[in-house]
Amino acid sequence: MTKRRGPPVRAVPLPGRRMSEEKVIVIGGGVGPMAGVALHAKIIENTRTDGTDQTHLEVHHFSRSPDIPDRTEFLLGRIPENPAFGMARTFSCAWKAVREAGKAAVGGIPCNTFHAPAVFDAFVERLGREGIGIPVLHMLGETREYLAAAVPGGGRIGILSTTGTRDTGIYRALLEPAGYEVLEVPGELQDDIQDAIYNRQWGIKAVSPVSEKARSRVRELARLLIGRGAEAVILACTELPLALEGILLDGVPLIDPVAALARALVREAAPHKLKDL
Amino acid sequence: MTKRRGPPVRAVPLPGRRMSEEKVIVIGGGVGPMAGVALHAKIIENTRTDGTDQTHLEVHHFSRSPDIPDRTEFLLGRIPENPAFGMARTFSCAWKAVREAGKAAVGGIPCNTFHAPAVFDAFVERLGREGIGIPVLHMLGETREYLAAAVPGGGRIGILSTTGTRDTGIYRALLEPAGYEVLEVPGELQDDIQDAIYNRQWGIKAVSPVSEKARSRVRELARLLIGRGAEAVILACTELPLALEGILLDGVPLIDPVAALARALVREAAPHKLKDL
Repeated sequence: MTKRRGPPVRAVPLPGRRMSEEKVIVIGGGVGPMAGVALHAKIIENTRTDGTDQTHLEVHHFSRSPDIPDRTEFLLGRIPENPAFGMARTFSCAWKAVREAGKAAVGGIPCNTFHAPAVFDAFVERLGREGIGIPVLHMLGETREYLAAAVPGGGRIGILSTTGTRDTGIYRALLEPAGYEVLEVPGELQDDIQDAIYNRQWGIKAVSPVSEKARSRVRELARLLIGRGAEAVILACTELPLALEGILLDGVPLIDPVAALARALVREAAPHKLKDL
Repeated sequence: MTKRRGPPVRAVPLPGRRMSEEKVIVIGGGVGPMAGVALHAKIIENTRTDGTDQTHLEVHHFSRSPDIPDRTEFLLGRIPENPAFGMARTFSCAWKAVREAGKAAVGGIPCNTFHAPAVFDAFVERLGREGIGIPVLHMLGETREYLAAAVPGGGRIGILSTTGTRDTGIYRALLEPAGYEVLEVPGELQDDIQDAIYNRQWGIKAVSPVSEKARSRVRELARLLIGRGAEAVILACTELPLALEGILLDGVPLIDPVAALARALVREAAPHKLKDL
């Protein structure tokens, strides 16, 4: 036991370091770049503040798209490099900054296809091996929780997604064990979704603001699922909510996985700051 | 002179390191958080790509609003801490990441009031003293260049801004030496702009999407300046373009400083990727 001399020693905070319980939110962006922006905006919109900038949460948004190959191309075996590794480099970059600031963080990645197990599992494994201490939420798992609040106890759920996401079956694998029946558009209409997203003349990726043709095509396909009994429709590609805004269509909830992820990130970073729905 | 043995030595790139000439764009965000998101979106929209995510630019967007005090409050002498220092901590954080990756970067800050000399000059001085090697573009200087393309050779320019920005006189100091005549709304109407931005019931900061009342108020004020001969109107608060979209009003150019900054950042990061206007 050492003797104390003079007044008790107090920890002196480093300049700029705050003794806050709030976590930093890390956006693993660039997949695609505008989806990161949409997630970022929804985090801000879902944060309860006193109206000042200073009560918003700290967000570090890395959009390193040149380093992250296309997810669908990898899953289809057309390119060899797993996009998991570029995204792990993004989180390595983020981890150094938050560790140095003595803060905790929580992360999210606004891309449906990135959550295919061949990518997401390799990503999580790489983070663990490199000692990157940022837990990353699973956007699709959070979407299931969000859905459970809208349609509790199972039911028939419509899914609109890219062909890549549909082929991986990730939404089926997620929802069927939880008691939901998954409804997709008939196979011969799947190209219509793909076209609404990718068409070079009038698709959502090509034209900003979204063309009326893309809007009406997406709306028709969602209505087709509703007509077949869907009690909610998941817009399971980050481009689709741009064409079908709002939270209801004909009284049926539209579920945006990016909004589900945004709310989950706020909840994990500062539960008392999550706005009511 | 040393003798060579075996094949010539080649530099081996670190994993994930790219020998690219493109610079990383650093957004000094959080001032306010949604202005950072607007800047980020405009960078994406102004980048020429081949339609893939991978040809977008690398963007590191730090929104550290809890660490950056209100700019107007500081300028009015109501709080002692210069927001320059919190923003310098943001760039210190960004600098470590880009330096470690062996990259060059260029930065921008989407807040008009931050560019008041009492803040911006202290910020630049602090970056220099700490050896932070990220040049930060001056949003208002870039706005003047952007304006010069729309209204070459001087002319009468309308400015809509917060009372804080108006009182600092930064736009006058910027434009009058360049031969422009600056036109603001009559003093008794300045509160109308402030109200359209800050009103807790219907102002732009409080209601999303923007209320029709805020939209019509901002439009009326812009028309008043146009009626008095403004050849362009600068929307000199990052909230205003949310209420007055488009690039022309009654045929007169609307100048958005955040768009000017976005284009300047793309130009500095990768000149060949700047989209035509």
